[in-house]
Amino acid sequence: MRVAVMSAPGEVRVEDRPEPAILKPTDAVIRLSATCVCGSDLWSYRGIQEVDGPSPMGHEYVGVVEEVGDEVTTVRPGQFVIGSFFASDNTCEICRAGYQTSCVQRQGIGALGAQAQRLRVPLADGTLVATPDVPPDDLVPSLLAASDVFGTGWFGAVAAEVGPGKTVAVVGDGAVGLLGVLAARGLGAERVIAMSRNEPRQQLALEFGATDIVTERGEEGVAAIKDLTDGLGAHSVIEAVGTQESMMQAIHSTRAGGHVGYVGVTHEVALPGMELFFSHVHLHGGPAPVRRFLPDLMDRVWTGKIQPGMVFDLELPLNEAAAGYQAMDERRAIKVLLRP
Amino acid sequence: MRVAVMSAPGEVRVEDRPEPAILKPTDAVIRLSATCVCGSDLWSYRGIQEVDGPSPMGHEYVGVVEEVGDEVTTVRPGQFVIGSFFASDNTCEICRAGYQTSCVQRQGIGALGAQAQRLRVPLADGTLVATPDVPPDDLVPSLLAASDVFGTGWFGAVAAEVGPGKTVAVVGDGAVGLLGVLAARGLGAERVIAMSRNEPRQQLALEFGATDIVTERGEEGVAAIKDLTDGLGAHSVIEAVGTQESMMQAIHSTRAGGHVGYVGVTHEVALPGMELFFSHVHLHGGPAPVRRFLPDLMDRVWTGKIQPGMVFDLELPLNEAAAGYQAMDERRAIKVLLRP
Repeated sequence: MRVAVMSAPGEVRVEDRPEPAILKPTDAVIRLSATCVCGSDLWSYRGIQEVDGPSPMGHEYVGVVEEVGDEVTTVRPGQFVIGSFFASDNTCEICRAGYQTSCVQRQGIGALGAQAQRLRVPLADGTLVATPDVPPDDLVPSLLAASDVFGTGWFGAVAAEVGPGKTVAVVGDGAVGLLGVLAARGLGAERVIAMSRNEPRQQLALEFGATDIVTERGEEGVAAIKDLTDGLGAHSVIEAVGTQESMMQAIHSTRAGGHVGYVGVTHEVALPGMELFFSHVHLHGGPAPVRRFLPDLMDRVWTGKIQPGMVFDLELPLNEAAAGYQAMDERRAIKVLLRP
Repeated sequence: MRVAVMSAPGEVRVEDRPEPAILKPTDAVIRLSATCVCGSDLWSYRGIQEVDGPSPMGHEYVGVVEEVGDEVTTVRPGQFVIGSFFASDNTCEICRAGYQTSCVQRQGIGALGAQAQRLRVPLADGTLVATPDVPPDDLVPSLLAASDVFGTGWFGAVAAEVGPGKTVAVVGDGAVGLLGVLAARGLGAERVIAMSRNEPRQQLALEFGATDIVTERGEEGVAAIKDLTDGLGAHSVIEAVGTQESMMQAIHSTRAGGHVGYVGVTHEVALPGMELFFSHVHLHGGPAPVRRFLPDLMDRVWTGKIQPGMVFDLELPLNEAAAGYQAMDERRAIKVLLRP
């Protein structure tokens, strides 16, 4: 089968690799309907994170179950399924508390490579959620978004304790940030301030329900948020970048007692303790436990309430994955969907 | 009147200074019944924090109201009152959300100096809480504890989301940490693990309701906590020191999805973003909004449910404040009560 493989920063090729097979009785093998390129794939593409030899890429996926191991009971061949970027048993104490991405048995899908035609999913019962039926083609992008990028934006909003009556600011106008806007509205926020200086992304933020746009960054961005919130800062801030500047922008934009939900994978960030102490904010985030939200998000997409798939502004055949990486790297595309 | 003044690291003297007077119609002047030395006073005593000229010291106080400004309506002369270490209006949006130590009008009591015979308390209506009656003398230490040290331990436990069924670890065996143990029990924790290698402090932790003692520190301490919690870590960890080591010990001792409540004033701490991200913990803390908890804590003390005043293991006349600082600096005393 065909798989996208990264051999070095900037070098993505689609190669032939052996078909996956059931290795454990808890595995499933699925034929992918769609997959995509993640902002986090760009860290290694840009050489900021090490590339460990030629590696299969991708961890976002939807598709049809082809085969299941003997112990799999909740999904069966022929079903259309969505999974998260970490396989989880969904039964351990950590999963039951809603932190499936820290499951005691967790396994990264990234190492298996979901930018491919087929994928072996470990712990299938705990990881996969089946849709009510095989979806019409136009729902596929939005269902795919739930696998990671929308689930991550949603977790950012949940971690920031977004809710009715709250003012929310979103730092970052990548796909996760934009879907953080959609999540904030979905969770009932009164006011959602998107921070972006990119016109097409501003437009999408507004379509997703942003009520205000702030174009300033850093401390000027913080001042703009304060101006919009009686000098106090937002109740909830979603951080969807992961740099020192964006983290500090998020913390400083939050009022005392407010909540920062951070879902940008942090790189070379060191949070100054004293500033954090006197900021009085709540800080929570990490790898989004998408599995916690999947049934709800799937239902919202299935019933047509929301269309997170709108973040995909470029669709390519899997064989052209390299062009997809390049478009995202150059910020010509917000998010690239690949059709295997 | 007599006031403790620090002129340089290690140099505390009790001097004569002018009596305080009502400066604003929202002020009150109180005659102190008791005050004390705070762990945070030791940062400047030890030269870790700069001493800004000769400064009056102290921010913990209980006493009897002598005089109030024209606009003060909730306390009157003759009443026994407790206040927090920050004066707050208790009416702004931040106060109403429970973050009185970030009140938009907040004023530090430390700058006024509560290690004194009398104290002017700004924003008296928002800051002071009166007891039902003038208390018997044996209640005074526990009421004084509510002013900061117990209120801070309590906030640490609240910030760590302590509650029934939870396992709580407490990093730090100073007065705040020990009262964090008491707070955790008061909030219904099932199991409370005190981290201490000091025998008298271990004893007090046990009297306050600790169920386990861990003597190891750093990563060995973390391993010990994991051993006691099926390898997962505690649900809630109270951090009551404020150093890099203690913060990391607290974060690493917390399970994924768990909560760190940090109330040790952080000094030269830089939290590594990537580690924090993958820890999946909630982080919250800062200067304890003691005013939020004062009515409840006062009631618990008044009705004899708890005796946080047990942390005072040395009592001195105000005139001997220097000896009190020295005893705490050398860890001969856990916490020193001063009688003006």
